Amino acid sequence: MKRSIACIALTLLPLFAAAQDRRSDDYVEYRQAAFTAMGWHFKKMGAMIQGRAPYDALEFKRRAEAVSALSQLPAEGFLPETQDTQLATRLKPEMWYQKERFDTYMQDLITATAELAAQAGAKDKDDLRSVYGSAARQCKNCHDRFRESD
Amino acid sequence: MKRSIACIALTLLPLFAAAQDRRSDDYVEYRQAAFTAMGWHFKKMGAMIQGRAPYDALEFKRRAEAVSALSQLPAEGFLPETQDTQLATRLKPEMWYQKERFDTYMQDLITATAELAAQAGAKDKDDLRSVYGSAARQCKNCHDRFRESD
Repeated sequence: MKRSIACIALTLLPLFAAAQDRRSDDYVEYRQAAFTAMGWHFKKMGAMIQGRAPYDALEFKRRAEAVSALSQLPAEGFLPETQDTQLATRLKPEMWYQKERFDTYMQDLITATAELAAQAGAKDKDDLRSVYGSAARQCKNCHDRFRESD
Repeated sequence: MKRSIACIALTLLPLFAAAQDRRSDDYVEYRQAAFTAMGWHFKKMGAMIQGRAPYDALEFKRRAEAVSALSQLPAEGFLPETQDTQLATRLKPEMWYQKERFDTYMQDLITATAELAAQAGAKDKDDLRSVYGSAARQCKNCHDRFRESD
């Protein structure tokens, strides 16, 4: 009896392992999706600020609000179990030893993008340059420390 | 002179084509990211509604608000030029001949998820079953008509 239970357990083991991996991959896929959508809107705002695209106050506001909402999403994707993911990720492994700092960066991003969304709508894009720059700096802080470069 | 300009043009052509493809891919990547993030939160709400996860009114509200914000994002990723994308996509090509209906589905999704976010926070999850179901139906309407099945 004991032996047959052990046999069943051994047979099922790869299934559990696969389920676990798949779960990790779901988390990674989710957090990368949130960053991809965030980057999309952030870059379009950057193009307006830098004059590579015509400035449209309403469009800028819509994108700033999207970024502010999106900034709250990725954090829950950083589960310690995702260290075993099979997906490509640029996250530096040392993040897991500095999770508190990482969480602070995430919170700073949320605050900075909320401020950007609050000020968005200004008639003159130059009034948004500094608040956009603050949000961009939050992205960069975290990328510099915790993301592998290209 | 004419010949050398033609030569330069021919040399640059693949670069332009690549840039165009890459642009299409960016749009597809973006809209898929928005759907991935939306699906993540939508499924977690579904698990609560169906009793597969403990119901937490605050968490449900946070996810409903995320879905409502996310529902407004993918539309801009459906640019006709993306028909030449190199990325895997489950979009049925006939959507491009029924774009008006597709846009209506998108608007219905935005309306239904805004209503879900407005009602979220209820003490009793059973009070959310119907409004969650309405939002789920909007997902399904569009998937049935415009998304290849797995």
